[in-house]
Parts: sequence; C-alpha cells; structure tokens
Amino acid sequence: MTPTPEQLAMGIDTIWVLMAAALVFFMEAGFAALEAGFIRAKNSINIIMKVFMDCTVGMLGYWAVGFGVMYGLDKAGIIGVSDFFLQGEAEHLGLKIPLYAYWLFQAAFAVAVATIVSGAVAERMKFGPYIVFSFLATAIIYPLAGHWVWNANGWLAKLGMVDYAGSAAVHAVGGWASLAAILVLGPRMGKFNADGSPNVIPGHNLPLAALGAFMLWFGWFGFNPGSSLSGLDMNIARVAVTTNLAAAAGGTMGAIYTMFKWGKPDPSMVINGCLAGLVAITAGCGSVSPVAAAIIGAIAGVLVVEAVGWVDHLRADDPVGAVAVHGFCGTFGVIAVGFFHTERGLFYGGGMELLGVQTLGVLAVSLFAFASTYLVFALLKATVGIRVSPEEEIDGMDLAEHGIAAYSDVPNFTGAHAGGLPVGSLPGFPEISAGPAQLSSSKP
Amino acid sequence: MTPTPEQLAMGIDTIWVLMAAALVFFMEAGFAALEAGFIRAKNSINIIMKVFMDCTVGMLGYWAVGFGVMYGLDKAGIIGVSDFFLQGEAEHLGLKIPLYAYWLFQAAFAVAVATIVSGAVAERMKFGPYIVFSFLATAIIYPLAGHWVWNANGWLAKLGMVDYAGSAAVHAVGGWASLAAILVLGPRMGKFNADGSPNVIPGHNLPLAALGAFMLWFGWFGFNPGSSLSGLDMNIARVAVTTNLAAAAGGTMGAIYTMFKWGKPDPSMVINGCLAGLVAITAGCGSVSPVAAAIIGAIAGVLVVEAVGWVDHLRADDPVGAVAVHGFCGTFGVIAVGFFHTERGLFYGGGMELLGVQTLGVLAVSLFAFASTYLVFALLKATVGIRVSPEEEIDGMDLAEHGIAAYSDVPNFTGAHAGGLPVGSLPGFPEISAGPAQLSSSKP
Amino acid sequence: MTPTPEQLAMGIDTIWVLMAAALVFFMEAGFAALEAGFIRAKNSINIIMKVFMDCTVGMLGYWAVGFGVMYGLDKAGIIGVSDFFLQGEAEHLGLKIPLYAYWLFQAAFAVAVATIVSGAVAERMKFGPYIVFSFLATAIIYPLAGHWVWNANGWLAKLGMVDYAGSAAVHAVGGWASLAAILVLGPRMGKFNADGSPNVIPGHNLPLAALGAFMLWFGWFGFNPGSSLSGLDMNIARVAVTTNLAAAAGGTMGAIYTMFKWGKPDPSMVINGCLAGLVAITAGCGSVSPVAAAIIGAIAGVLVVEAVGWVDHLRADDPVGAVAVHGFCGTFGVIAVGFFHTERGLFYGGGMELLGVQTLGVLAVSLFAFASTYLVFALLKATVGIRVSPEEEIDGMDLAEHGIAAYSDVPNFTGAHAGGLPVGSLPGFPEISAGPAQLSSSKP
Repeated sequence: MTPTPEQLAMGIDTIWVLMAAALVFFMEAGFAALEAGFIRAKNSINIIMKVFMDCTVGMLGYWAVGFGVMYGLDKAGIIGVSDFFLQGEAEHLGLKIPLYAYWLFQAAFAVAVATIVSGAVAERMKFGPYIVFSFLATAIIYPLAGHWVWNANGWLAKLGMVDYAGSAAVHAVGGWASLAAILVLGPRMGKFNADGSPNVIPGHNLPLAALGAFMLWFGWFGFNPGSSLSGLDMNIARVAVTTNLAAAAGGTMGAIYTMFKWGKPDPSMVINGCLAGLVAITAGCGSVSPVAAAIIGAIAGVLVVEAVGWVDHLRADDPVGAVAVHGFCGTFGVIAVGFFHTERGLFYGGGMELLGVQTLGVLAVSLFAFASTYLVFALLKATVGIRVSPEEEIDGMDLAEHGIAAYSDVPNFTGAHAGGLPVGSLPGFPEISAGPAQLSSSKP
Repeated sequence: MTPTPEQLAMGIDTIWVLMAAALVFFMEAGFAALEAGFIRAKNSINIIMKVFMDCTVGMLGYWAVGFGVMYGLDKAGIIGVSDFFLQGEAEHLGLKIPLYAYWLFQAAFAVAVATIVSGAVAERMKFGPYIVFSFLATAIIYPLAGHWVWNANGWLAKLGMVDYAGSAAVHAVGGWASLAAILVLGPRMGKFNADGSPNVIPGHNLPLAALGAFMLWFGWFGFNPGSSLSGLDMNIARVAVTTNLAAAAGGTMGAIYTMFKWGKPDPSMVINGCLAGLVAITAGCGSVSPVAAAIIGAIAGVLVVEAVGWVDHLRADDPVGAVAVHGFCGTFGVIAVGFFHTERGLFYGGGMELLGVQTLGVLAVSLFAFASTYLVFALLKATVGIRVSPEEEIDGMDLAEHGIAAYSDVPNFTGAHAGGLPVGSLPGFPEISAGPAQLSSSKP
Repeated sequence: MTPTPEQLAMGIDTIWVLMAAALVFFMEAGFAALEAGFIRAKNSINIIMKVFMDCTVGMLGYWAVGFGVMYGLDKAGIIGVSDFFLQGEAEHLGLKIPLYAYWLFQAAFAVAVATIVSGAVAERMKFGPYIVFSFLATAIIYPLAGHWVWNANGWLAKLGMVDYAGSAAVHAVGGWASLAAILVLGPRMGKFNADGSPNVIPGHNLPLAALGAFMLWFGWFGFNPGSSLSGLDMNIARVAVTTNLAAAAGGTMGAIYTMFKWGKPDPSMVINGCLAGLVAITAGCGSVSPVAAAIIGAIAGVLVVEAVGWVDHLRADDPVGAVAVHGFCGTFGVIAVGFFHTERGLFYGGGMELLGVQTLGVLAVSLFAFASTYLVFALLKATVGIRVSPEEEIDGMDLAEHGIAAYSDVPNFTGAHAGGLPVGSLPGFPEISAGPAQLSSSKP
C-alpha cells in the first residue's frame, strides 16, 4: 500500500520527536554524572538516586497530573484542566504526530526541571521530602509555568514570548526554584565561615562530572532541535548550529575568563561554561543568527563564573552551580532574544516590544518558580523536615539514607569520611561484608 | 530525480531501524557499566572484557550462523537453514528495509542475550570458556528460541504468541540461561555460609552501575520502539510511552517496596526496579495501555526484589541480579500480556487463549534456554574447566586473566585485595611500573 | 499543506544528518573517557579539559576558518576560499540538506581530528599551546587535507580516491599528526630507559577507558553511515554492517593475538582492536563486502598490536596508542580499499589504478599532516614552550595547570602521587579544603 505524503510526513516527524525524546531523557544520565562528580563521594549514590526519583516518580507525576496542567484545555491562560493520565485525545493541540510521542518528549523536559534542583540541594536534603518535591515539580510547578509560555492559550504565549526550547520554562524555572530550595534548606556544614566567606568543598570525581557534561551537551541535540516537533521544519538545522556555537563559545570563555581571573583555567567553569552557553541559547536557538549565538554563549560563559560568586554572597550553598547555570544564564538567554531575534529583536530594528515581553515573561516564571518552591520547601521543613541530622551529614547521605556506600572495596572512599560503615569480615575474605542491604542478597 | 513514495518510506524505515540499532548496541556499554559497578574492583575489567567478547566474537557468531538459524528458511517451525554469513537475499522475509539494516538490528539483540549471562557468572568464570559460550549463545541458543517466537514460521509465532521486543526471546532466554550457568558454576567463595545464608558482597562502584542503568534505559528507546521495524507504524509512540511508564513504575516500586521492607530505599533495587519494569513491558509494549504498562512495571518492581531472595535460596550466586531481572521479570512480562492485551487479553474479554499461548511460549523458550545452557556449561566444565582457581579468585580475575588491574595509580584498588600485582618502581617515579602487559608498550 | 516529495526527502536527509552529527559529537565523550582512563589519575582532568578545548575553541576555529578552507570555492585543487563564519550560501556544494546541517556534521569531524592528537600528547603538554594547536588543526591542517580528499574539486578527489568517512582525511591525518607532535614533545619522564627499552605506565581507570571505547563505537554509527549525507541512500545499511563487522573482527583479533603473543588477552588491545577495525573500515565501508570488512578489521586488530611496539621503538611516547590506532590502521584502511573495492579493487579485477590512487592519497595527507604538525609544534616549542616543567610533570598536570585534583575526597588519588595539593582542613570537617579554585565558590 503506497503511503500518502501526509503519512510520510507524520512518520518523519514522529521518529524525529521520539529520537529527540531519547536524547533528552539521556540528559538525566548526564545530570546524575555531573552532580555526583561535583560533590563528595559519601553523598554520591544518594544524589543519583534522587535523579532516579525524578525519572520514575517525577515521570509518573507528569503523566498523572502535569501534562494536563500544562497542555490540557486552558482556563484563563493560567492552567490546563484536561488530559490527565493521558486520557483523552487532546485534539485541541492540533498535533501532527501521535499524542503519545508528544507526551514523551514533554515528559523528558518535566523530569529535567526537577533534576536541576536535585543538584542544588545535594549533600544535605532528606530523600523522602525530595521525592515529594520531585512529584510536585513535575505535576504542578513546571507545568504551570510551561502552560503560560507554551500552551497556545497561555498568557505569555499570547503576548508573543519567544522561548524556543525553554531557557525560561525549563532552565530559569529550575534554576530559581533551586535558589529557593537552598535558601530554605541552608548551607552544608562547613561551607561558610562565621564571616560569611565560603570554603571550597571539592567534588570527588571531576572526570565523572565532565562526562556528565558531554552527555548533557549530546542530549541538547534533542532538547533544542527536537522542540521543532517536526523533521520537516528546516529551521532545525539552524537550531542545531546555534546551540553548538553557543556551547563552544561558553566553554571557551569559561576557560579564558578564569585563566585571566584566577591564573588557571578552571575545569568546573569550563564545564559550566559550556552548559551556560547551552542554557542561554535555548530560548533563541530558532531565531538568532550563528554569530549572535556565539555572542550569547560567550556572555553566558562569563556570567556563570560571576554568578557562582553572587550565589555564595547570599550564603546560599549550591554545590553544583545550578542557580548560576540555569537561573542566571537561563534568564539572560530569554532576555537576549529581545536583542538578537532576527525579526523582532532590538538590534535588528524590532524595537522594545519583544524585549519587554521577554523580560516580563522570564521574571514571571522565575518569581513563580521561586515562590512556589519556597512555599513547598518551607511547608516540608515545618512538617516532616527536609534536612538530615548533623551526624548523618558527616557520615554521608549514602550510609544514612541507603545503608550503603557508593564505593566499596575501596577503603579510602568509605573509611576516611564515611565513618560508620559496618563491615563484617569473614576470615580469608576480608572484602566480604555482612553489612547493610545490597544487591543480590536477600535481607534478613 | 523525484523520489517515489515507496523510496521515501524505505528511507524513513531504514534510518529508524539503523538509529534504533545504534541505541540497542549502546546497551552493551550500559551492561558493562552496570555489571562492573555491581561487582568488586578486582574483577571489573574482566567482566567488561567479557562484554567486549559478546560484541566481537558474539557478533561474528550471529553473522556466521545465528541469523541463518533464526531468520533463514524454516524447517519444521524449529530452525532456519539459510542466509549464513549474510549470503543470500532473504527474500522470504519480505522486508521493506535493506536486509543489512534488518540484520544489524537483530545482531544487537543477539549480543544482548549473551551479555545478560556475563553478569551472572561474574567474578569466577574463566575467560576462554566464556568466549565459547558467548559464541554458542549468539550462534545457536538465542537464534533457536528467537526462531520459534519471531520467525514467521516458528511454532510459537504460528500459535499467535505476542512478544513485541523480546521479554521471552531475549530476556527470559538470557535470564534462565544465567540461572543454569551459575548452578553449574557454583557460587563465589564466601557468598554462602555453611547454613546456606548469603553474605553481601558489595559492588565497588554504584555510580558506575547507576550510569549503566541510565544507558540501558536510553537504549530501550531503540530496543522496543525500533522493533516495529518501521517509522511509519504510528504504534511506535505507544510503544515508547508504555516502555517509559513501566520503567518509571518499576523504579518507583523498587524504592518504595525496599523502604517499607528494609527501612531504606535500596539503590541497587531502584536501579533493578527500573530495569525490571523495562524487561517486563518488552513483550506487551505494543499491545497494552499506558495504565496497564504502569501496573506491569510496578509489579515487576516488587517481583525483582523478592526474586533476588529466591535465587539466593537456591544457593545460586548471581552478582548482578540477572536471573531476577531478566528471568523472573521477563517471564512475568510475557504472561502479563495474556491479561492486559487490549484485544486478546483476559482482562479485556479475550478469554484464556492468549494467556495460554503466552504461558506455553515463555515456558518453552525458558526451559530450552536453561537446558541448553546447562548442557554447554556442564560440557565445558567437564573438559576445559569453567572456573578460575581459588587463588585466582582471591587475587581477582583482572590480574589472573589479563595481568593487569582495572585501577592503577590507586593503591587501595589494587593493593588491599588484589594481592599479587607485581609493581616494579623506578627511583623518583614511583608510579611507573615495569609489571605486566599494558597499553602503549611493546611486550618483552 | 501537503508536503512535496522533495520536501519529504529533504526532511529525511536532514534528520538523518543531524542525528548522525549528534552521534559523531558524542565521540568526544568517548575520546575523553578513553584517554583519561588510559593515563594516570594525576593528569586525567587535564586531558579531558583538552578535549573540551577541541569542542569549544576547535569548533569555533572550524566555523571561522576551517569550513571555508575545506568546502569553500576551490583554488587549484588545494584550498577553499569562501564561506568563512558560515557567511554565504555555499551554492557550489549543491547540497540537498540545509547548509547548517551539513556544517554541523563536518564540524564534529574536525573536532575529532584535534582530539586524536590530545591523547598522544597526554601527561606532559602545556594547556595554552595545546589550545593553539587545536585551533590550527580545525582551522587549517585538517581542512586542507579534507579539501584535497572531499571537496569535489580537490586534487585527490579528482583522481578518484575513495575515503568514505575518513580513514585518510580524519584518522591518518590525526594519527600522523600525533606522531609528529610526540616526536617534538618528547616522551614522559620515566617512559624509556637509557637503553631505549620502554617502561609500562599503567592507565588509572580501565573501566573508564572501556566505556569510552563503547561510546566511540556507538558514535561510529553516525560517523560512517551518516557520511552518506542522505537517509535515502540505501547503501547506508551496508555501511553500518561493514563498520560493525570490522570492529567485531578487530576486537576479536586484539584478544586472540595477544593471547597467543603474551599468554593473556590484553584489555587495552581488545579495546584498541575494536577501534583499529573501526578506523580501518572507515575508508571502505561503503564499497567493500561484509566478508572483506571482517578481513580488514581482523588485520587491523593484529596491526595495532604490532604498531604499538613500532612506535615504542621510535622512542615516541604515545600514552593512548593514537598513532597505532589512527595512523597505522587509518593508512592501512585506505590502501585496503584498493584491494577490496567491489568494483575497482585489485581483488575484484579492477587492476592497480585505484590501489595506486589510494596509496598516493593517504601518503599525501599523512605526510602533510605530519609535516605541518611538526612545524607547528616546533614553532610553539621555540617560542612559548610546549612542555610543563619536570616538577609539574611529577606533581601532575591537574594541579599544575588547573589547581585542582581530578579526584578529591579520595586520599590515594591525590596523596601518593600528586604531591602538592594544598589542603586546609577545618576542625571537625576534615574533608573540606580551603585550597585551590573549585566549583561553587567565589575565588579570593
């Protein structure tokens, strides 16, 4: 049976979106590696488990509630009220691909927002309350902001806001939610001195963090170009190029700027410079030129270095730089579209209108994300508590929350800092522990 | 020259299958990381080398023999007898994509079956006999089972068995083959006490294992949707969604169930819960609803926790949980289709017929995989031997089999447990060893 | 609006090329992991940072200059002179996909060439001069060689040279450039004894290296089939199959040959055997049979083992085997096409002509790459210097060049060999350092 052009087009668009969704999902692996590498060994499996909770509980939250809030039938430009649990055909969306493919791509985005926060609260937040937040983030917080920006009837969408793949809806939301979270949560023990000056708490595995950054960059090949939702929209080629040039410029500046500022190129800032460029270009990747993309990325690569210091000055402790990368650079990227949009930007004769809308839009979603997350964290703090005990913080989250060390068979990973790992040894097999729960053994 | 609709369709289908094949192949990286992370450092490069053998020797085995056995011209519903070494056009398959693209996708599946077993036999099986098994698995064992289920003339296919992407043909086969292998091989030293109670042998690098699980999940975006073999089959969107929801539900239950059972969410069970959900949904991903997928995944997430204990009670030592994940959850997933198939399932008014076929089918391939693997391992044991010596097991497979440690320059990885690493040091350059064979030096 | 067949075709080709570009880009993650794993811990974040520089500075170099040199309007078959900074429509290329998509795919290749060299110069080359080289490699050296081979008007292209995805233009160029670089740079301290015999300097993390190899193999699914630049060219299926069979045969021989030669299968040679097969088949993947691909891969898997010894005999110190893998096996692969090309090869009655052209072509680009890189390194050495001080080499590049250790919180990674890490500890929080620059703290 000869396929029609419409069938062929739907096939092209669907495989494009599904492959892009796979890439976006894979960013979770990147986040997990990045965050684990940037923190101490004793908390590293705990943070990875939190990322797993985003992918599991969080994905179920977006299925049950979030998608309906975001893309369901609109009420007042504020909220969607249909299509929960993927019940319904969502005909109002006018999709040219199956609803399920669309949902999956969106779900991978929702999960990412929660995961941005997981990094900021690393090394001291309890596991249970994190799961609650992860669910609320994918079910309510992100979907509301996303509704405003991306639902055709959202109030920001109607104003003409441009946020191609989510510098605002994803990154600014995740970044400013992170700031709220860590302000309520408080800094890690020993992070700040009495005079407010910060101490450095080195990440335990920078190669792992760097690998995570590569995975994230790779995932961005789906995140940005995939947001076209069509493989027949030839603008995807521009999107892919602007995305990569911004990342390249961001990483370049991360190296150069720290070389001049501190004498040596800082690895974490090279890594975060690339990510800063990627975050910043995400709003404008479909509507700015390659040259503008490189400029936006370069500025973000400097901004992220400075922003890390600004966050420290708030006595806010962000172990992985989530606020700087996603909050500051996401916000900057949204506003930059007001200048660089090739049709409506200030630098291209488009006047102030788009710039105003972009600024308003990113402020709105950022304030909402900050306030709602602050509220959630304050409520959790007042009820179940959000922070592990000082003893648990010293011992490490891996033992306290999961009864297992991330690294075994390697005494220095577990011995020097982890403190309490109960290791029972058998004569002749010193590496065998009769300790806490682990794979492939039934528990007593 | 204007392409015809048929040419366009073939292009869409071919790039879909090739990209999916790439994702399925990448699961080998995931298996390698998962398995290495779940075992001790001293055996970690050995297990990764075994995965490499699956990808190399095993792939050649599927090329030379396996594909012909599986998809060659049928004899009696049991075996294929043509198209060895990709000689022939395989016109009987009626493919709408090039034979080579079809072969590559299938080859990536074959390799995965062998790799499932590699994890179960970790930390004590000799390298040479493993290569022999890997070849036989991809050349004979898996292709025979696959022939029955997926060759249009296979006896189970003719009965109407539903196994979309291989909960039976791949996972149950790999899982029950693993059980046979470890029963012949025996447990690792120190795993079981005299009274049969198991000891915990912690994995050396849980972040690595977790990263492996993410890679596997990512690869499943190709494994399941790619099994459509067509990018124009819009059911691929459902397949992708059911696959992800099952994984999400499995991981959620892995966390919740262990939290209630043992007081703390167990990282290895969160990881294996996700994988359990993925394995279980692989049979029904194309024919069950998203809600059913979540239910199937959730059940698998509990089942895998219990099954790990059941395997222990057999005094079968499965360091990575392969039997629990692939054997139990694969089998469960096949049978679940009999209940949840939206047209032929018991819960949808389809009666008992499909349920019976599914149960028969998965029992048949599971018994065959168990018996044939048991035979191969018993023969290897009786002839060349399959197990390293106790001294080698204590020293570690990496040194015993490859003359090198997975981690150098890190005394505790090699010193405390590895025992015999011969390190010759040069004055002033203590990190330089004149020891065993390693990269970038000619050997004496 | 119903899409035309031409629009559909362009969509198929574009998503194919963009997905392939993503895979090729991801090879950078693979290179980073491979190289870091094969060297010592104390230099591991430095080498990863160099790979980041390829992706950032190098990508900008290809954007600004390299692409124009390679694919701009031809002058004399030698050099391109238009389309710098992606200005211009490049209509002379006659593309059937957007120029931007084409550029991105090519850019990922350019970055790879520089990265091949990064591995060879590991553990002793200064960071700043490396950035200069990386820029020149992507802006001038690779684009010139690439122009000759792949620009329709390049002098080797006009002779009929066959180099499907770059055994010559990418791998031989990168490999022989590596040899030039390390001859100028000199070996690492302690690598060679006074009598010229080499010492083994073990890699610090073979699981990481192995993971890198898997990532590279995965990326090759884009590198070779993507070079069709069209998803409607059904030869891509053959390309994918020959690529995988060559890798499988190479890895198989890497295991078998070292088992016979040294008594044990060498992990680094299994890894490099796979890569050798991939490199060698890259020229002929579109024009040889699967059987020939397996033969080519198998030969490469032996060749790479021997070549590592040959490089040692030159007293050239190549920590990761870049010269052996990319130089020797790339060159071999180009010449092999002269024998195995199914239409023009010597073994298929095609006579000596293609064999001659292939040999000439690979010699030309190899000599050029060697000479130009030698010149660049000699100039850098005579001016800014290219090598860290002996003290810095002993302390490790990570501390010397970046003021940070790759692994913190793990005393044995940083203490035994790294020497000078300044760690200031706070009472009660011994893991907290007030030392050098790291993430999430403003610097004084």
